[in-house]
Amino acid sequence: MANDKKFVEEITAMNVDFAKWYTDVVKKADLADYTSVKGCMIIRPLGYAIWENIQVELDRRFKETGHENVYLPLFIPEGLLNKEKEHVEGFAPEVAWVTHGGEEELTERLCVRPTSETLFCQHYANIIGSYRDLPKLYNQWANVVRWEKTTRPFLRTTEFLWQEGHTAHATYAEAQEETLRMLDVYADFCQDFLAIPVIKGQKTDKEKFAGAVATYTIESLMHDGQALQTGTTHNFGDNFAKAFNIRYLDQDNTHQYVFQTSWGVTTRLIGALIMVHGDDSGLVLPPKVAPTQLVIIPIASHKGGVLEKATDIYHQLNDLVRVKIDSSDKNPGWKFSEHEMRGVPLRLEIGPKDIEKGQVVLVRRDNREKIIVALSEIKTRVPEILEDIQKSLLAKALSHREAHTSIANSLEQIKESLDKNPGFVKTMWCNEKACEEKVKEEAKATSRCIPFEQENLDTKCAICGKPAKTMIVWGRAY
Amino acid sequence: MANDKKFVEEITAMNVDFAKWYTDVVKKADLADYTSVKGCMIIRPLGYAIWENIQVELDRRFKETGHENVYLPLFIPEGLLNKEKEHVEGFAPEVAWVTHGGEEELTERLCVRPTSETLFCQHYANIIGSYRDLPKLYNQWANVVRWEKTTRPFLRTTEFLWQEGHTAHATYAEAQEETLRMLDVYADFCQDFLAIPVIKGQKTDKEKFAGAVATYTIESLMHDGQALQTGTTHNFGDNFAKAFNIRYLDQDNTHQYVFQTSWGVTTRLIGALIMVHGDDSGLVLPPKVAPTQLVIIPIASHKGGVLEKATDIYHQLNDLVRVKIDSSDKNPGWKFSEHEMRGVPLRLEIGPKDIEKGQVVLVRRDNREKIIVALSEIKTRVPEILEDIQKSLLAKALSHREAHTSIANSLEQIKESLDKNPGFVKTMWCNEKACEEKVKEEAKATSRCIPFEQENLDTKCAICGKPAKTMIVWGRAY
Repeated sequence: MANDKKFVEEITAMNVDFAKWYTDVVKKADLADYTSVKGCMIIRPLGYAIWENIQVELDRRFKETGHENVYLPLFIPEGLLNKEKEHVEGFAPEVAWVTHGGEEELTERLCVRPTSETLFCQHYANIIGSYRDLPKLYNQWANVVRWEKTTRPFLRTTEFLWQEGHTAHATYAEAQEETLRMLDVYADFCQDFLAIPVIKGQKTDKEKFAGAVATYTIESLMHDGQALQTGTTHNFGDNFAKAFNIRYLDQDNTHQYVFQTSWGVTTRLIGALIMVHGDDSGLVLPPKVAPTQLVIIPIASHKGGVLEKATDIYHQLNDLVRVKIDSSDKNPGWKFSEHEMRGVPLRLEIGPKDIEKGQVVLVRRDNREKIIVALSEIKTRVPEILEDIQKSLLAKALSHREAHTSIANSLEQIKESLDKNPGFVKTMWCNEKACEEKVKEEAKATSRCIPFEQENLDTKCAICGKPAKTMIVWGRAY
Repeated sequence: MANDKKFVEEITAMNVDFAKWYTDVVKKADLADYTSVKGCMIIRPLGYAIWENIQVELDRRFKETGHENVYLPLFIPEGLLNKEKEHVEGFAPEVAWVTHGGEEELTERLCVRPTSETLFCQHYANIIGSYRDLPKLYNQWANVVRWEKTTRPFLRTTEFLWQEGHTAHATYAEAQEETLRMLDVYADFCQDFLAIPVIKGQKTDKEKFAGAVATYTIESLMHDGQALQTGTTHNFGDNFAKAFNIRYLDQDNTHQYVFQTSWGVTTRLIGALIMVHGDDSGLVLPPKVAPTQLVIIPIASHKGGVLEKATDIYHQLNDLVRVKIDSSDKNPGWKFSEHEMRGVPLRLEIGPKDIEKGQVVLVRRDNREKIIVALSEIKTRVPEILEDIQKSLLAKALSHREAHTSIANSLEQIKESLDKNPGFVKTMWCNEKACEEKVKEEAKATSRCIPFEQENLDTKCAICGKPAKTMIVWGRAY
């Protein structure tokens, strides 16, 4: 078992240096690799397989709610980006510019899309003519680029992968309904599929998307107590429609502006998976998103019958779960820690003694529990245990979040909570930007959201003491 | 039926102007749209749904042959692109250059990937150490950019979507085996799934990929007699491995260079589908790739029971085929031509008289055949007919290709064949580039490939009369 130890020892412990632990897991679990391209990463097979599972599941949910996929260009001409004033101010400082095509200098610079609102608007202006053309419910899976100064794999990279929904509606109310519907789709997906609990809420004016009337968010808490904005949905009202002249003829033959939304999640979801569920042995994947749900490890596989039995088990389970058999020539201890590092939810060990007893040994990744199961029962027990792991991970993450959520009644308390028990801090708030700026400056925290589930903690704003308008959640965020 | 006619009349007839017919179909079938971004296109819902079906099927075949998906950066630093001499000479003239990130000028220009050999090589140099790490069988689904002067939707656009396989092997023989294996995967996919017959062969030295030892291709023939390079696979030998120093320790503890391949198909497959199967009523989709395989059109749907029956049929067929019901308020004739334009393989009409007789009317898109089927038999007949459509389309395309394949024994005959019966022209060839250049200059045709299936047409090269080495296929190509 010497190899086994060495493999695990190479990871920094979480409580020694969480940031280092994170990048160790990313590297050792073969999720991503660095490149010579500043701020960009290579998504390796395990990382990409997780992203594919996320895509398939989200795409199914998008199509169920009536959305269609399209693909728009990578480049946005500078003039087009400049059409909506707030939007360009928000994005221009962080875009990459193409100035030359082949040998020639371009007459107009092209920006590499940081997001595609302007392109969708131009397309909508072309294809929407009548109320019969509405709603338009489009989504796009794409890569986008934002010129970031400091980057971390999955969490913040110059290029990242995402989906961006862009919809157009006849009325403000329909756009608002869509904005909230997609927030629910994201929240359900995170909780059901990724086992990540989220807080649903609205962003403050200060934190909303460039060009939006209202931005909604799902916020989740990482193991180190830092917050992560996990997905956002935006109601644009008719801001973009007016800038791009997107109008339709209504049933009374009158021209009306459309109302629009957009919404997106990115490969940072993989960062969230790592930081919510991971431990000192590496990645821990919820079964629903795990590319491999069960790994079979033959013990003493040189002995007669072991490999055959392992293969037989593989075939029994292959239709029920995503299963792999590791029959490489590494020693079992090494294999154990390797598949633990890669987050495989469940391991099945089968050796000569197990065969004698007509049993297998199952070991859960989440809590290391060993479960002896009769060979005759694996087809029912394995799926059951995977289901239980999925539930346990959500429950564990939820209780972690609860244990790291404080209530504060003063700026001093906000700071103290964030320092002593890093996590979310709830306070009442007056709705003024000045107080947000004060929290940012003195407590190094940002408003995460105004949660839909409100509580009445106090009558006064925790920061300035003026009458409170709403409860808000603060946090230090990735 | 006035509307019906108008809808179809807006398309140029194929034999009047094939190029115009093509763009008409692209626009009217809602496959793609133009943008203000020069040379780029918007892939609209129907076009993208076709691409998704292509992706799912190809991806399944790639995974069955042991490949894993990864994702590499969009950008390639200029210095990295320059590492393999032939490769950079081939691509540098047609790449887009990023020179600014945010407000700052970059110290090294970044090219937007035209293909990712250089990035894969750099990654392989990092992750390959021993023979145990081989083979590496990676694939990537991505967008790439090539600065094109003249563009046409799907066939040649500045940005396009594709997959690029990149593999590394211990020996030249293994790399060659992979190169041919993937050519077979492409050929089978085109024939089985897209109903497009292809000729498999090797590219001449003149036409091979920049940096490759050998390039293989599948060539297909469009309805107008022009050829289309439908997919290519490349054996790089150890060219890139030497330029990027990708080495492994073999079983004898000696450093060896790896041998590499790459292979790709693009969204131009959608262009091929349009131009191989389409007709004067628009797109014709083979059932396997069609997003909607059957459209149900209720006739006189205001009459009692029609819509209910149509819905009942929808539910009966929904698990068997990809079915839609069109219950919009347009008249049936309009719906017929709209779904014909969009290439739906099979239409089901159900009206009061049909209900009385316990039947439905099926109309095939490919040959317009009307088939009366008893309601009790639709669950067996619809899948059968779709299967027959799939086969018929392949047979039709194959006989079209055969009718447009000539044999020539002189440069004069090559020209004459291409002018009078546009298509493929087979000749014997001496293996000299000079003859290729002569054919290009005088017959405006390029060598498509040296087919695997050789015929002995003559002892002499058709162009120069010197001893022939091989049979070659010529064509005018997209």
